[in-house]
Amino acid sequence: MTSYDSFLSSTGRNLAESAIRRMGTVVAERRDLVSFAPGYPDPALFPWRELQEIAASLLDGSDAGVLQYGPTRGYRPLLESIAQLLPERGITAAVDDLLITSGSQQGLDLIARVLVDPGDVVLVELPTFTGGIAAFRNARAELAGVAQDDDGLSLDALDEVWRRQHGQGKRVKLLYIIPNFQNPTGRLLSRARRLAVLDWAERRDVLILEDDPYGSLYFEDVASQADTRPLRADDRHGRVLYLSSFSKTLAPGFRVAWMVAPRQLIDRFETAKQSTDLTSGILDQRIVHAALTRGVIDAIAPALRATYQRKRTLMEQAMRAAFGARLTWPAPKGGFFLWVTLPDGQRDTELLTRAVAHGVVFVVGSAFFVDGSGHDTIRLSFSAPPDDRIIEGVTRLAAALG
Amino acid sequence: MTSYDSFLSSTGRNLAESAIRRMGTVVAERRDLVSFAPGYPDPALFPWRELQEIAASLLDGSDAGVLQYGPTRGYRPLLESIAQLLPERGITAAVDDLLITSGSQQGLDLIARVLVDPGDVVLVELPTFTGGIAAFRNARAELAGVAQDDDGLSLDALDEVWRRQHGQGKRVKLLYIIPNFQNPTGRLLSRARRLAVLDWAERRDVLILEDDPYGSLYFEDVASQADTRPLRADDRHGRVLYLSSFSKTLAPGFRVAWMVAPRQLIDRFETAKQSTDLTSGILDQRIVHAALTRGVIDAIAPALRATYQRKRTLMEQAMRAAFGARLTWPAPKGGFFLWVTLPDGQRDTELLTRAVAHGVVFVVGSAFFVDGSGHDTIRLSFSAPPDDRIIEGVTRLAAALG
Repeated sequence: MTSYDSFLSSTGRNLAESAIRRMGTVVAERRDLVSFAPGYPDPALFPWRELQEIAASLLDGSDAGVLQYGPTRGYRPLLESIAQLLPERGITAAVDDLLITSGSQQGLDLIARVLVDPGDVVLVELPTFTGGIAAFRNARAELAGVAQDDDGLSLDALDEVWRRQHGQGKRVKLLYIIPNFQNPTGRLLSRARRLAVLDWAERRDVLILEDDPYGSLYFEDVASQADTRPLRADDRHGRVLYLSSFSKTLAPGFRVAWMVAPRQLIDRFETAKQSTDLTSGILDQRIVHAALTRGVIDAIAPALRATYQRKRTLMEQAMRAAFGARLTWPAPKGGFFLWVTLPDGQRDTELLTRAVAHGVVFVVGSAFFVDGSGHDTIRLSFSAPPDDRIIEGVTRLAAALG
Repeated sequence: MTSYDSFLSSTGRNLAESAIRRMGTVVAERRDLVSFAPGYPDPALFPWRELQEIAASLLDGSDAGVLQYGPTRGYRPLLESIAQLLPERGITAAVDDLLITSGSQQGLDLIARVLVDPGDVVLVELPTFTGGIAAFRNARAELAGVAQDDDGLSLDALDEVWRRQHGQGKRVKLLYIIPNFQNPTGRLLSRARRLAVLDWAERRDVLILEDDPYGSLYFEDVASQADTRPLRADDRHGRVLYLSSFSKTLAPGFRVAWMVAPRQLIDRFETAKQSTDLTSGILDQRIVHAALTRGVIDAIAPALRATYQRKRTLMEQAMRAAFGARLTWPAPKGGFFLWVTLPDGQRDTELLTRAVAHGVVFVVGSAFFVDGSGHDTIRLSFSAPPDDRIIEGVTRLAAALG
């Protein structure tokens, strides 16, 4: 037999695997598990009837373009619709500043490939989204973590890390940040911090990669749309590359997301995308476009906010009843996650082993830290499971915690 | 304003653009053009009614998985269906040897990233598919071209190129080959050559990347299924990575393709895919799976073969009537393309400029050559245009040729 190791590239030998995707495999293999692991949206909120109608109408054969190859940049009317929805978020962008991506994960990957040389430094939050970590690692970036507090990224820590890296002669190219209901912490970056991060990036000549999948999923009892105003909305110097997605506001199965970036860079990302997948799914883009223009996405947004808020309350109440003060977490103001600190002496990986035995899974906190720390944390997603499964899962977690 | 050039990676600075995709943009901008440029399937052959029914049934809300995130490896029943169709092609593969990709373009990209280090040599046919060239170039491979004759890749040229590269101390990792109705030449690699290429790869310790989008589109008047037997079917040593797709046999808008590879490598490609797009479109995979298991794809295959054969005849007759012996091409035995050699003194890029002015486009032949040659060739796709547009396009081409 052929030996394949000698055929691997440096990238191929050192591929980073996503801990979240690994958990997905565990879940797929055991049917009775309660899964607090992946950040899946609640499928009960998908607008099935409307999507069924849209698909039937698109597939009536009257427009061949629905199933043909399409432009790499994206389906033009979808790009136009996105340009029209961005002002709601305070963002002004023309179609030339936009690129459709196959999920925001592809946006992360394209940015990593087009901007990051091996050894370049990418600053990331401690903790941060594993898919971002994997994309940067696979471009062979060096990842440097920046601490957060309750208001999100710490500016002092940010500049300190930059100075340390810079002092070692390294090039810090990017800051990767999830300001709205961060994955995994659920934290919301304060308005003052957002403006300070923009100033900092200009002063230190760093680009900001702002990942915003959850912005419209704020909890109306503790937050408002104004709190979620993206950094990109106040970007005066073209420092921000902005990613957002329909995965959480419509459905992830379509793999339709988008990037806003300065057009010189968008052209590069588009060229990189050409050789990556030619184009994102055409039927998917057409369905999302129809859902946008028919008002389906706007119409379900309040129900999404209300449902996730209700599930957050349900899980917090169940957790408090089961654990009292033994487990703590920052109160999320939106999004999908409780970011839980374990009691002294509990370790995330060991707890997970016991939890699987008790029929509940989560993602170990350490997977979100680029510095090897975080073993006293776990991420619980309350977004997908039905109410009774949330309760059941917390009961199982309590049994696992002992 | 921020200057972005200094933020680009080596890859970002040197991105290769696909000439075919560029032509797609030209076509999108001018409505009246006759396009012989991109290798689009004929949308009149898409099974609209069946796909409409399948989509309606999948989107009835009874199965949440239809619009949820799914496994990176692919929708398991689709993987199983593909494993079941492969024996028709002489290929035995288990689900563990398979990966769903977002178009075969993603297969090319994943293979390039996981196997190719900057400076590694990839051998490609002269000429070859521009999407392959772009994927390898973006992994910073060195591309070395191997001449073809009427039976496809020349074995003498292959070993000579290998020896030259090897003699220069370079590592030749891959041979990229399209044995069935090659893009752009339409050529069919002979059976004897297929076996010889396999022997050669084992002797020279090179992996073969076999790209097979067109295999089932043989023209029954001059070829049979037996002629299209993939190299992978006779691969005794695990040398072949095999790519195929539903883009030409169902519709490209779904972006559903697959790879067959040794499972140690498949695991790597899967991990690389995780950070690239997490998963291919879920609804797309479900629709393709239903089309496969309901027999829709098998049912339309004879009509696809007959239609493309008829269009080939139509175009060849129109070309002979318009050009006599001034233009020549190898008679294609399947697929989408006529690969035309221009008369002395005509240059592909100059002809294209005149052709656009006359309202017809094609892809310049030089785009398919990695050695800078091929300016006396053009690629004409007869697959997508309706009959009357084929005739009209040839008339316009004649006017442009002068």
